[in-house]
Amino acid sequence: MDKTTKDITKLIKPAVRKLAAYHIDETPCRIKLDAMENPFSLPALVQRDIAKAVSSASINRYPDPSGKELKKAIAALWGMKPANMILGNGSDELIQAILLAFGGPTLIPVPTFAMYDITSRALSQTVVTVPLDKNFELDANLLLKKAKESKAKVIFLACPNNPTGNRFSDKAIRKILDKADAAVVLDEAYFSFSGKSYLPLLNKYPNMIVLRTLSKIGFAGLRIGVLAASPEIVAELNKIRLPYNINTLSQVAAVAALKHTNIIKRQISLLISERETLYNALAQLRGVTVYPSETNFILFRTTADATQVYLKLKKAGILIKNLNKPGPLKNCLRVTIGTKEENKEFIKTVRNILDTD
Amino acid sequence: MDKTTKDITKLIKPAVRKLAAYHIDETPCRIKLDAMENPFSLPALVQRDIAKAVSSASINRYPDPSGKELKKAIAALWGMKPANMILGNGSDELIQAILLAFGGPTLIPVPTFAMYDITSRALSQTVVTVPLDKNFELDANLLLKKAKESKAKVIFLACPNNPTGNRFSDKAIRKILDKADAAVVLDEAYFSFSGKSYLPLLNKYPNMIVLRTLSKIGFAGLRIGVLAASPEIVAELNKIRLPYNINTLSQVAAVAALKHTNIIKRQISLLISERETLYNALAQLRGVTVYPSETNFILFRTTADATQVYLKLKKAGILIKNLNKPGPLKNCLRVTIGTKEENKEFIKTVRNILDTD
Repeated sequence: MDKTTKDITKLIKPAVRKLAAYHIDETPCRIKLDAMENPFSLPALVQRDIAKAVSSASINRYPDPSGKELKKAIAALWGMKPANMILGNGSDELIQAILLAFGGPTLIPVPTFAMYDITSRALSQTVVTVPLDKNFELDANLLLKKAKESKAKVIFLACPNNPTGNRFSDKAIRKILDKADAAVVLDEAYFSFSGKSYLPLLNKYPNMIVLRTLSKIGFAGLRIGVLAASPEIVAELNKIRLPYNINTLSQVAAVAALKHTNIIKRQISLLISERETLYNALAQLRGVTVYPSETNFILFRTTADATQVYLKLKKAGILIKNLNKPGPLKNCLRVTIGTKEENKEFIKTVRNILDTD
Repeated sequence: MDKTTKDITKLIKPAVRKLAAYHIDETPCRIKLDAMENPFSLPALVQRDIAKAVSSASINRYPDPSGKELKKAIAALWGMKPANMILGNGSDELIQAILLAFGGPTLIPVPTFAMYDITSRALSQTVVTVPLDKNFELDANLLLKKAKESKAKVIFLACPNNPTGNRFSDKAIRKILDKADAAVVLDEAYFSFSGKSYLPLLNKYPNMIVLRTLSKIGFAGLRIGVLAASPEIVAELNKIRLPYNINTLSQVAAVAALKHTNIIKRQISLLISERETLYNALAQLRGVTVYPSETNFILFRTTADATQVYLKLKKAGILIKNLNKPGPLKNCLRVTIGTKEENKEFIKTVRNILDTD
């Protein structure tokens, strides 16, 4: 039998062949405000502790399969219990594990974090969507109706939501937790910037799964996602988790870094204060609608063509996220909170672009 | 609606609920010869270069999503082309991606590497098995017959095979590559210890996928798996791959480490030479059948109860892998090649155990 590559790609599942790969903008830029990264490089003190930890790591050996020390460090930081936790190679891996364990359909509000949809479709699972209202608020009754109709197995709710920046009403979330016959995943990736968490309700709702990440608070390069749920759900998800999913260097580096709680907290406060400054500055710009944020980014809408604004910023060496497409995010852009200097330059540049438009 | 945890775990897919989590023996031990790790800690020179690379890494930023520098370094080491490559968080993640893209059934010889079976079942995919003969050789005709009958989508062949240590006949492998209407995954995790690779045939067989890993040659802690296939297969698998699957520290550490090709090659030569010494020593033990190995481990069978031998070794502080269960691996044990001193102590201890049995 003679085989061509064409024959072979035909062996690939139809749902996979229809997908496009996730696009990441890798344009080199002077000021990078597109990816919700913490803009501060590591203080020398933290850097030194990480270097020390890495130096004594046994790279020739497999990592600790359950990440015991790192779980303890994160448990201490966020008031969790190791028995309720799973570590992931970023939240992405945990989202995938949840979808593999519970199956589909997946139910998500729109707009929200892209990976819920992308990962579901990569797993050939159906995605059911619920539109948010014009203030990006969630209609719990509509969601519950769709959950029932579609027999959804997993509901993802980003709290606060990305890319909109707002936090859904507490009443809506609790109603969904109370009523939904599905796993309800509360993705708290940005909770550090809102201060509000559903973690204390873990004992009350056995269908609740909380996701957290070290990516937004200074350690995106380590790829450490955290899942908290009932020990029973943790046991099932651990069957899906690949046995050595967190490498040794990320484990020891994160343990070393998380000892510097004060530095982490100070950076978060600074970013929250910068967010308020940036919000006020954006609100004063001509033809800009800015949306309230409880995260480390701000969504705003321009009366001008947002794609042109995005491209002009990029040309000036400033990368933000272009969300402009027909629908609820028409002419919307998302900017991550940077350092004071970066934010100033961003505002100055976007003001110039809009004024000369 | 009041929910109990029992109700919630019922939401989990039946195939997942039936699984047991992968067991890893975490017994602390003096001499660790259970996991095919390279026994040598990193030379100071390599350690220094890794520390330097880690110090200048931007941990606050997301990793390079495609691992460009690391792909280049691995391509140079193994004569690959970056366009044919995907990096994985260990081969485990690549095995999962292949299964997600092609679907099931999965066809595997038995015995072989456990993760092909475990991962397939975690994805609710059927596993079809083909028994190896008494010398652990592969019957290509039988495999092809089963592939056709079951409409297998993926065939995994570890070359050399784990846990048996042998390399399947070249004729059998080529026949399967020629005839099978499925993705044929040649897992070359141990190729460094056999010197034989199917990589040069990549252009000839569009249905061939080669897996490699940095885990057996000194860097198990970094979790770097490598996949080589046609650019078309690579494009499809990249849709499944999570966008930031290789963390920054593993990327920069591996690039720094792989510059020391001579050290890596010298360690491999040493382990091959130690393997021969260990093989000869095992062959001389009372009631031991030892199997030829082209890997960094050796499979052997005892006339005594292998589980007792394993437990006595463990009590003496030496951890190896107990494979003893009814079937082809009855009374079989697997020992990873250690340092000269570790191997000597292992042989001395196992000889004492067998002599006093």
